[in-house]
Amino acid sequence: MTASKTTRRRRRSTGIAAGAALLAGTALAAAQEPPIVLAEMGSFHVGGRLVEIAGKPVKEVVFTPGGVPAKVDPNGTYMAEQMYVQYFIPQDKRGAVPLLMWHGGGLTGVTYETTPDGREGWLNYFIRRGWSVFNSDAVERGRAGWAQYPDIFTGEPVFLTIANPFERFRIGQGEGSWSPDPAKRKVLPGSQFPVDDGYMNFVKQNVPRWTTTDAAAIAAYTALVDKICPCVILFHSQAGQFGFKVAQARPDKVRALIAVEPAGIGDPAQAAALKTIPTLMIFGDNIEQDSRWPKIRAGDLAFGDAIKAAGGSVDVIELPQLGIKGNSHMMMMDKNNLQIAALIQNWLAEKGLYR
Amino acid sequence: MTASKTTRRRRRSTGIAAGAALLAGTALAAAQEPPIVLAEMGSFHVGGRLVEIAGKPVKEVVFTPGGVPAKVDPNGTYMAEQMYVQYFIPQDKRGAVPLLMWHGGGLTGVTYETTPDGREGWLNYFIRRGWSVFNSDAVERGRAGWAQYPDIFTGEPVFLTIANPFERFRIGQGEGSWSPDPAKRKVLPGSQFPVDDGYMNFVKQNVPRWTTTDAAAIAAYTALVDKICPCVILFHSQAGQFGFKVAQARPDKVRALIAVEPAGIGDPAQAAALKTIPTLMIFGDNIEQDSRWPKIRAGDLAFGDAIKAAGGSVDVIELPQLGIKGNSHMMMMDKNNLQIAALIQNWLAEKGLYR
Repeated sequence: MTASKTTRRRRRSTGIAAGAALLAGTALAAAQEPPIVLAEMGSFHVGGRLVEIAGKPVKEVVFTPGGVPAKVDPNGTYMAEQMYVQYFIPQDKRGAVPLLMWHGGGLTGVTYETTPDGREGWLNYFIRRGWSVFNSDAVERGRAGWAQYPDIFTGEPVFLTIANPFERFRIGQGEGSWSPDPAKRKVLPGSQFPVDDGYMNFVKQNVPRWTTTDAAAIAAYTALVDKICPCVILFHSQAGQFGFKVAQARPDKVRALIAVEPAGIGDPAQAAALKTIPTLMIFGDNIEQDSRWPKIRAGDLAFGDAIKAAGGSVDVIELPQLGIKGNSHMMMMDKNNLQIAALIQNWLAEKGLYR
Repeated sequence: MTASKTTRRRRRSTGIAAGAALLAGTALAAAQEPPIVLAEMGSFHVGGRLVEIAGKPVKEVVFTPGGVPAKVDPNGTYMAEQMYVQYFIPQDKRGAVPLLMWHGGGLTGVTYETTPDGREGWLNYFIRRGWSVFNSDAVERGRAGWAQYPDIFTGEPVFLTIANPFERFRIGQGEGSWSPDPAKRKVLPGSQFPVDDGYMNFVKQNVPRWTTTDAAAIAAYTALVDKICPCVILFHSQAGQFGFKVAQARPDKVRALIAVEPAGIGDPAQAAALKTIPTLMIFGDNIEQDSRWPKIRAGDLAFGDAIKAAGGSVDVIELPQLGIKGNSHMMMMDKNNLQIAALIQNWLAEKGLYR
């Protein structure tokens, strides 16, 4: 795009986008960007299996107060363990392959859409740069739906208090750091997380999650890779094990892996399966003093070493070592989220995946 | 847009969109359309309340197999009853106000995104025509998340067998009409629902739902209207009561109501509150022989008559009376979904809401 075209596009978009920003409560950042031009957008579900349930009594359910009762027979065939994918195909495609975004535990694809204080997220960033992005909700999260327990899912769902992610995602200074009173809240010094404008919005993004559905999630992600790839997979936190394990199952389908603070890894015995896939791991700040992250990171780095020992290529970015300080576990939402996206974009270009 | 520009855009998009369609498994219909040009897109959560839970034992949870255990204290403050909204603001805005899309029971905003056989849905249709669209997941559906029960939600969630919507949404010929064997499946004659290519995909879109969360859904939708409107609200099925009741609570914020087979209504005693809001009700085919829909439609029409008696304007479209046959309860997914969208678009233009 020439400089004059860029200027014209920006001028055209400002008035409308500013009005839209007012409506949506979003930041004005978007108003400075040219429009997002999509050849296609839509969604689909993928994966899933049929499960039979028998021997239960028929119920009458009034779905709407004062409505007409409907017979609901709980016996029969259920769909379970499918996942949801929303896709955005830019008009001017510059990514060599589609980019898949996989969220972390207790979250959904919302992770990448917008920051909790209303700035643009990584989804928009990569679409704007010409990547076809497939942003998904894993099995039992968000629009994937979830299945009844204990009949289909084993175990019970885990719900998080509003205080839990504040501590666990390295926004606050460990246990007891959250307080509804901003004056009493102990935020990590220099934190990039948009606490004041965004933490309560972030909490609203949290969804229940099981700890017993990993195999189902991997099966659905594998079905997604079989449908869409070759591709790049960008994955976060809980999806660490999903990204690495699915790539180990389908190494010929994956052109690069971007592991954002992976909380789990692939099968170390099969590290060699990843030797042809360029891999990037990114870690934020304040890991040393955390109760869990030094050990998690050590496991990630050891797994990376195993891939390298097998002849693979693993790059590790520790943001503080680049002078980028204060990033939380939710770096795609942090105030400098687009700076980190640019590091990923540059790495993908270096790997020859951008034209 | 001039004719030559349209032609050029179409030509430019075909190659890319065809590739994308191949990737995404979508129909080629999109390839014949010009690109979707957005000034902005993003998402947010709205509404919700804080709930305290106390007196439960602390658990250790291993979130990832082989991972580092984390302490999860179930006591504390939870966020509950928020809802999720994704927005698309076109570059060339032609709708006078934003268009809000509210889905039906056991479903999410996916209802409007794409048809289960991969054609474009009403979301794309209205964005392409210059409407700012806010497509949402109601409280406890999809990306809204859901709250633990019985501690926060009362009652239990309802799960549907794959056979249930086939009968209840007037795709099949009543009870027992679903069969996994296409040869034994009793589809209503002339049905517009994409059964063979889409029914199992539609089933994957179904999510659990409560029957005890209506007040919470209305509270969150009201918060959404307070944030975004003035607006037009298009609502389906279970959201019948939500659309009418929220409009009754905020009549000055709503410029038009489009009730797509509403399964519930507003407060008849307050019908006069809607007298300044042009209202359109749309019904599909095969209602007479259904076990529930004649009574539901009668309630809808009586409510419409009450609005008219108070001086309001209510238009009713019974699709078969226009010669449009075979539409199911899920008409936004039926094969002729864009024909029905065009009826809505024309009605909005007639009401002076399109420029």
